[in-house]
Amino acid sequence: MKKYNFNAGPSVLPQETIANTVNAITNFAGSGLSLMEISHRSKDFQAVMDEAVALFKELLNIPDGYSVLFLGGGASLQFCMLPFNLLEKKAAYLNTGTWASKALKEAKLFGEVVEVASSKAANFTYIPKDYVIPADADYFHITTNNTIFGTEIHKDLDSPVPLVADMSSDIFSRPVDVSKYGLIYGGAQKNLAPAGVTFVVVKDELLGKVSRPIPTMLDYRTHIKDGSMFNTPPVVSIYAALQTLKWIKNWAEWKPYTN
Amino acid sequence: MKKYNFNAGPSVLPQETIANTVNAITNFAGSGLSLMEISHRSKDFQAVMDEAVALFKELLNIPDGYSVLFLGGGASLQFCMLPFNLLEKKAAYLNTGTWASKALKEAKLFGEVVEVASSKAANFTYIPKDYVIPADADYFHITTNNTIFGTEIHKDLDSPVPLVADMSSDIFSRPVDVSKYGLIYGGAQKNLAPAGVTFVVVKDELLGKVSRPIPTMLDYRTHIKDGSMFNTPPVVSIYAALQTLKWIKNWAEWKPYTN
Repeated sequence: MKKYNFNAGPSVLPQETIANTVNAITNFAGSGLSLMEISHRSKDFQAVMDEAVALFKELLNIPDGYSVLFLGGGASLQFCMLPFNLLEKKAAYLNTGTWASKALKEAKLFGEVVEVASSKAANFTYIPKDYVIPADADYFHITTNNTIFGTEIHKDLDSPVPLVADMSSDIFSRPVDVSKYGLIYGGAQKNLAPAGVTFVVVKDELLGKVSRPIPTMLDYRTHIKDGSMFNTPPVVSIYAALQTLKWIKNWAEWKPYTN
Repeated sequence: MKKYNFNAGPSVLPQETIANTVNAITNFAGSGLSLMEISHRSKDFQAVMDEAVALFKELLNIPDGYSVLFLGGGASLQFCMLPFNLLEKKAAYLNTGTWASKALKEAKLFGEVVEVASSKAANFTYIPKDYVIPADADYFHITTNNTIFGTEIHKDLDSPVPLVADMSSDIFSRPVDVSKYGLIYGGAQKNLAPAGVTFVVVKDELLGKVSRPIPTMLDYRTHIKDGSMFNTPPVVSIYAALQTLKWIKNWAEWKPYTN
């Protein structure tokens, strides 16, 4: 009998993702080499990266003007990479749980942070409503699914400033109107692939506006310019993510967002 | 016939590493779950992490007072993480190639950088000697193996300040006197595991001395405190690294450094 993991953290992946990844680690694209050994600059791996980006865009119906990145370091690294790139003076955060609190904490190193609302006093048992997003914030950050506490933001919010969302644990669980977001990010290990890769969907025009210098690896523009290949990408996790994306595409019930 | 990859970038791994990783992705530790799905907080994965750290220490004969970390983001992320943690006023760099130049460039965002010597004018065809390391530098950075140019620092240098080495492509190719280093780091994808994990060996007493605030994920102390499990680690790459470490241990010719 197939066993399932209902633990916190990494979760079940499609059987196809596991089987196809095993096959590629044994013999990648008929090369006689393992996926773990091949050059990420090889034509065959470039095709994997290109297809993963294309399918991500297709399945989420991502509009023009957005880039899709696959990065290392985990969503926790995004907690600081995000304000490094986007926070010039002030950012707004909705505090709905452990991950939202951690994201908010990192932003404070980079500028003023306004906690627009928090459900902490009620042990994060609800998603606050009726808060005001400062119109002069550089962005407004939400965590769409709050593991540990079990609350979720089920719809795409309206925001007067660029909306940034951590969708680590609910990406591809519903259609998303990406045009309402400035940036969406998440660790892959819940819904896409083994831990080790983080997806970032970013509206290009938001970048390059902060005055601080940004270390090369923490600058989204580095990874956009080099198609997530500035340095050696986490090839196994990206290959596995592609298999899950193909599985979603073949899933009759998946419908991208449409207006 | 087994095929070998002599390309730049990721390279050949032991057959045992590939076979054992395939087995674990199919059924991890008899759990009926894939290595790609299990909780990194599970007892069985904790045992993988513990054994990888213990073997790393054993095979390099690492003295007390050093921590061994397995992090995401690649060695390129270390180019900025390193000065974030260690550069208060001034750092010294030996410029011996592409990677050394990239490391040096990132350090400049954090303080004064002294290039003690460079072989750039001769297209990095040699390792400079007869340079002076400033006695007031916070650390002295070297790249022990210069891929692309084919030069290598074959011995453990003497330095009046903490010696920091990028050993991405020659770790475990010779015994190393770790006591001569303050920090050693490297991407795993040359000699250890598939891309996606970076090893860091750091002398604990060097940390906590800079005055700047450090984002949580970029602070080595975060990862020391949580045993490389502050966030979800790249489980597949770490599992594969452990298999290679076991393979090295069984390799009769491997001898750790001894005084």
